Formats: sequence, structure tokens, C-alpha cells
Amino acid sequence: MKTRIYNARILTMEEGRDIFRGELQIEDGRILYIGTSPKSGEAWDEEIDAGGNLIMPGFKNAHTHSAMTFLRSYADDMKLQEWLYEKVFPAEAKLTGEDIYWLTKLAIMEYLTSGITAAFDMYKLKAHSARAAQETGFRMTFCGDLNDFGGTVDDMEQDYLKYNEDPESLLSYRIGFHAEYTTNRKLMEEIAALAGKYKAPVCVHCSETKREVEECRERTGMTPVAYMDSLGLFRHGGVLFHGVHMDEADFDIIKERGIAVVTNPASNLKLASGIAPVKRYLDLGIPMAIGTDGPASNNCLDMFREMFLATGLQKVVCDDPEAVPAMDVLRMAAVTGAEAMGLSDCRTLTAGSRADLIMIDLMQPNMRPIHNIEKNIVYSGSKQNIKMTMVNGKVLYRDGAFLFGESPETIYENAERIAERILG
Amino acid sequence: MKTRIYNARILTMEEGRDIFRGELQIEDGRILYIGTSPKSGEAWDEEIDAGGNLIMPGFKNAHTHSAMTFLRSYADDMKLQEWLYEKVFPAEAKLTGEDIYWLTKLAIMEYLTSGITAAFDMYKLKAHSARAAQETGFRMTFCGDLNDFGGTVDDMEQDYLKYNEDPESLLSYRIGFHAEYTTNRKLMEEIAALAGKYKAPVCVHCSETKREVEECRERTGMTPVAYMDSLGLFRHGGVLFHGVHMDEADFDIIKERGIAVVTNPASNLKLASGIAPVKRYLDLGIPMAIGTDGPASNNCLDMFREMFLATGLQKVVCDDPEAVPAMDVLRMAAVTGAEAMGLSDCRTLTAGSRADLIMIDLMQPNMRPIHNIEKNIVYSGSKQNIKMTMVNGKVLYRDGAFLFGESPETIYENAERIAERILG
Repeated sequence: MKTRIYNARILTMEEGRDIFRGELQIEDGRILYIGTSPKSGEAWDEEIDAGGNLIMPGFKNAHTHSAMTFLRSYADDMKLQEWLYEKVFPAEAKLTGEDIYWLTKLAIMEYLTSGITAAFDMYKLKAHSARAAQETGFRMTFCGDLNDFGGTVDDMEQDYLKYNEDPESLLSYRIGFHAEYTTNRKLMEEIAALAGKYKAPVCVHCSETKREVEECRERTGMTPVAYMDSLGLFRHGGVLFHGVHMDEADFDIIKERGIAVVTNPASNLKLASGIAPVKRYLDLGIPMAIGTDGPASNNCLDMFREMFLATGLQKVVCDDPEAVPAMDVLRMAAVTGAEAMGLSDCRTLTAGSRADLIMIDLMQPNMRPIHNIEKNIVYSGSKQNIKMTMVNGKVLYRDGAFLFGESPETIYENAERIAERILG
Repeated sequence: MKTRIYNARILTMEEGRDIFRGELQIEDGRILYIGTSPKSGEAWDEEIDAGGNLIMPGFKNAHTHSAMTFLRSYADDMKLQEWLYEKVFPAEAKLTGEDIYWLTKLAIMEYLTSGITAAFDMYKLKAHSARAAQETGFRMTFCGDLNDFGGTVDDMEQDYLKYNEDPESLLSYRIGFHAEYTTNRKLMEEIAALAGKYKAPVCVHCSETKREVEECRERTGMTPVAYMDSLGLFRHGGVLFHGVHMDEADFDIIKERGIAVVTNPASNLKLASGIAPVKRYLDLGIPMAIGTDGPASNNCLDMFREMFLATGLQKVVCDDPEAVPAMDVLRMAAVTGAEAMGLSDCRTLTAGSRADLIMIDLMQPNMRPIHNIEKNIVYSGSKQNIKMTMVNGKVLYRDGAFLFGESPETIYENAERIAERILG
């Protein structure tokens, strides 16, 4: 499959490289050529006229629970811990693998409408999410979700080996567990040992709420970051989801261990969890990425909302309108997200990289006039501006149509049926 | 012109009325019939199959400066007062009436993509914005923008009489001025006298930044609310734009005078102005509406972003995930906005009301499954869900196409030309 995208503005997201006009040539899922002086005379399977619109790397949703689509707008307006224990866990207990397959497909559709080309997905029964991702052609990195209520370290090791075996696969896997407050010490030590064996980072929900931090201090005398670090979990780095409530010693550990933090600002607002110190992390040089969190808490899977919040909230909290400029936000959403997921060839648009890219519709009133496209995207962009989403060289979404070969109605009907069965 | 919209879910926004399946019949800009048992046998000029999607009243953008589209992404990341005096005012001084005509058209396009059917517009040279609104068929209420740098009370009275003369017009006018900090006492007293003459409310930017409040206290010994009230400006009510920094006495005055408050959460974040006490206002029974503010500060004109922020920020600031439930937000955006603008027949969908309405696309992944459509709109909605926008019985936007009879490209080209001329 050879594809050419021409007549484009291109933002490669390489450090220091401005937007230029040019074209991309793609073969078998990878970018063969990107620049202003294309090789001509080739035969193309597909030629796409970008019409002057912007091509840039797709967004990476660096923290989500895709199959939770069935809980969207079901149990809103509750505190996180009650919400989790009284509503979410009992409903989730009724999910079958087949349910997860359909609900993950629904989430993937929404990712595509938001220009998201890869998701870092933490959920149970991964074989079924895997099938949903493979059938739709979507890139998914699984995050281990071990906790006291399910899973074993042996299973995690098998998944780790299985999903990371084929570097050409759309799927990959990172060691992880749910959270300090749902996982006993012995299990965390076993996870640390597994991470040590593969010299791998450990990914985990961390310091999302004040209560979580306070209860950990009561139990262990330490913050979640310090406690988990004391168990050796971050010897080879890690990824913290949320990271809202941190003290000075936490920042030191995160910096020293090379840990990345994924912020989920909409979910943190909606559950009244707090506002993560994004500017502080960035000032310290800590790699930052952005996630939507699951659709039960957010309730949508919209990278544009998250991007505006990632900067807007910092401006008001830090009383500094210059806090977290637009390019930093785009880098978090498109580049560092890939790093947090271990996707080394999905970062920027360069020859040899994966063709995971999006076309931003500049022929919309919210993108006009064009003073600064990057700022327009972060401060004015919306899902309506996603004209095309391509994963691994295949166009999965274009001009509002889903092109992965299954009708949206089938997916909607299955999601409604599952929600009805479980929630009544 | 007789139009029928059938096969719809309908949310009239009348107090206590749930969503039902039915149809609307519209003639000459007004709803003739709305319900489940339509009159049949009529001849229609236009029949619209809603396909099971939701029809609801359009959103009212209760505070904006439409023609500021030319400044989008031009001068971001600055403090409000420097931004205003160093960037905005000098650039605005170069605007001609023809510029304002084109720039307002660009804003109207964006309003339509966001389901906004009316805007409360504060800007200079209103005759030109008026032409833009009339040519596109968009409803616009002008707000007086008097201040020390431009305008007279006589002109304002003439505009007040001219734009309010014809109750069938798309245009109307409310007495207002820029702000306490840009308007001298004598001028404010004259405005108060004019408002007294017509028993009319006065609309004004108020307590947007801490600095504004502090400087007013230094100058007058009072907060802006108390000072303006002491001049008799709110004898017949008023509308305060922003209302971020209020003390207890301010709340009392606002409540007692029957003043409405328009919150502009995205602009307040982006300019680091603060977070308005929306929950407090609502708890006090103060009428609340939502505005985008101008595209120079926001930078976009997106009611979905504002709706999520209007609740999300309150949840985290009040440490209360139950703060400002979704229905309250929808009411602010669709109903109370009309009241703040004096549009008594654009509030809810009832027989006799104006046909200012939108169709929300429920056949999108972010609206599925359908547990609660109101929550889906507020917590998950985006511009992508606006399938149709109708103003005064005319479809102005549908399935991504602008139907007001002018090509988007012409408007984009003019906006780019103006921005280039003024900003270089």
C-alpha cells in the first residue's frame, strides 16, 4: 500500500522545525518521504489532496480505560472513591469479554474523531480490547491493571511477552497496576521484581486525590510516590497517571527516577480531584503527557478539551497567562504521549516513522485567520477540525466517515444493548 | 415558509418537562406546533427528518465581541490589562466598518458551528455588525459599549430606539458600557439617567480581575458593583459580564437588584483572571448565563467548551462533584442567556416561540450509549455534534455546510486580508 499526501501544510513536531508546505509519501505503514521536493513518477495506490490543511502527528491518549464507555453519563456527580466502589466496580464485575470488545470499539471510534491515533489503555480482559484494536486498525498500548481483586504477576509477564513480541504489531504492553490503595505490598514487590527482570518502567494511578495521599501516609508514613519508590517499583522509571497531589520530595523522586506524568485535567475537574501541577512538572523537565481518563469519569474522549485545560487551568492556578504555552501542550499531546507509551517511532513525522497522523481542517471559522496554527489548535480547536485520522498508514476516519469496515450503527446498537443489560 | 421537523427527540427546556419523541411545525420564524400529535395534511415548504436526533433551543452566547476574530491567536499569553492596552486597543483603532462587517460574519459562522443561535455582542460601529447579522439571518442583541474613548449617551439612545423599534427584527439593543475602569463618573451618571428614562437594565463588564476591583476600591472606596450601584446604574436591573471577584456585599446588591451574571470561564482561565463563583450565584438564585467572550481572549467561540468549564471548574473549586449539575448548565446556556439579552420568545421551545433551535447529532460515538442526553451534551458534547442550526425558522447550518448564501472562502479571504493589513 503506497499513499501520497500532497498540497499540505506540515507540522512534523521535530524540535525547532516550523510548519512548511510539502508532501508525505507513505508505504506499508511508515513514512518514506516527507519534505518539499518529493520523488515523482511513482505509482500510488492512494493520493490524498490535503487542500492546504495541516498534517501533524496524531494525538496519543496516554491514559484511558476504553471499555468504560458503557458508564458514560451513568454515575456522574459523585466523589471518586464512592463512585469507584459503589458504582463502577459493581457494574464492571458484570462485563464479559465480548462486552469489552464492543465497548472498546465504541471508544476507538471516538478517539478517531478526536485525532487520537494511539491509546494507553488500562483495562481487564485485554484479549478482547486487542481484537477491537486490531479489527479497526487502531494502535493500542496496554497497561497492566493488576490489583488485589484480579490478575497475577505471571499473567502480566505472559501478556508483556505476548504483546511486545512483534514490533510490527499495532499492540504493545507496559508493566503496570491499578494503584497503591488497591494493591497489597507483597503484590507490589512482585511487580517490582518483574519490572527489574525486564528493566522496564512501571505505570500506575498515583496521587489522584488528597484522600489517597492521606490514607497512604496513615498506613505507611509515606506519600504514594515515596512508598512505591521504596518498594523498588521505579528503578527503571515509570509513568504516573493523574499526579495531582505531590509534595516536594515527590517531585525529587519523579525527577531522579526519570518518571513521566500523564495529566487528565477534565477527569480531575469532574471528580473534584484537583488540578495537577503541570507547569511545575514542565519547569522541572519532567516528561508530561495527556490522557482523557476513562469515559465514565470524563465523560468524553476529546483531546482538544484536554489540551485547552492542560494550559488554561495552569494559567489561572499559577496566576500567569504565560504558563504552559501552546507548543508545550501540543508536544505533550502528540510527542511525549508516545514516549510514555514506549512508542519510539510514533513521535514526530520523519522518514522511517510510523504514519500515525491527522489532518487538521483549517477551512473552518475557528481556525481563521491563520496567525499561528499551533495556538489555533490548542486554544480554538475542536473535534470538528479533525478532517482525517490515519493509523499505521491507513485512513480510518475521514470527513466524518469511519473507514475501518464496520458500520457505526452496529457498534452503537451493541453498546446500547450492553449498557441496558448491565445497568438496566 | 412552512417547515416540519419530524422523527425527533425534543428537549423543550421547559421546567420539569422531559425529553419526548415528536415533531415541530414552524411558520414564518415561529413554532406553530410542538408535540406528539401533529396536525396532518398540511403542505410544507421543507420537511426535515431528524432521524431520532435531539432538537433543543439554540445556545445564547450572552457575552462576546464578535468582530475580534481578527485577533485570534495574535496576542496570547498576556495579562488582561496589558493585553488590552498594548495589543487590543491599538489594533482595534485601525478597524473600519467594512472590516467589522467581515469579521463579524466570520464569528457568526463559528457561532453556527457551535449551536449558538443568538449573540449578545458588545462592539463599536454596530451598523456594520448589524449588516453581517441580517445578511446571514443571525440573531444579535447589541450591548452599548460606551466608554471614555468613544461614543455618547445620545448616540446610545438613538441606537436603543433604532434597534428595538421592530419586534420582528433579528436585532435588538440593550443599554451598556465598557467598564467602570474605562468610563468616567459623569458619563456613568448620564447612562444611569438614560436607563432610568427607559426603565432598562444596564449591562457592563464587571469585576473581571482582582486588579480592577482593587483599583476601584482605591479610587472610590467601593467595589465596582457597589460603586456602580451607588450611581444608580442598576435601578432597573443589569447584566454583569464576567463577575469573577465578588465580596459578600456585592452578592447582596446583585441579588437585590435582580442583576444577571454572564460567566466566561474559558476567557477567565486563559487571561488568568480567576474562576467566577458560579455555584454561589446559582445557590443565591441569581440568573446565570454563559458567554464565550471575544475570540481574542478565548480564543474560540465554542459553547461546549464553556458549558463543561461552567460546571467542571465549580466542582474542583468547591471540592464538590455535585456542584452545578448538567441541567443547570444547559439552562444557563439555552434559557437564561435569552433572558439576559431580553429575548423573551427565544427561551424554550413552545408554540408561539421563535424557531431558534439546534439538532444535536446523537449518532456520534461521544453521545453513546444514551443514558442521559442532557449529561452527554454538557459533559461529552462538542461542535461535531451540531447537525443543524436554525435561526428564526431558517436553517443556516446543516451537516457542516453554511446555508446563508455566501461562500465560506469569501469570508475567510476577507478576514485574512484584514488581519494582514492591520497586524502585518
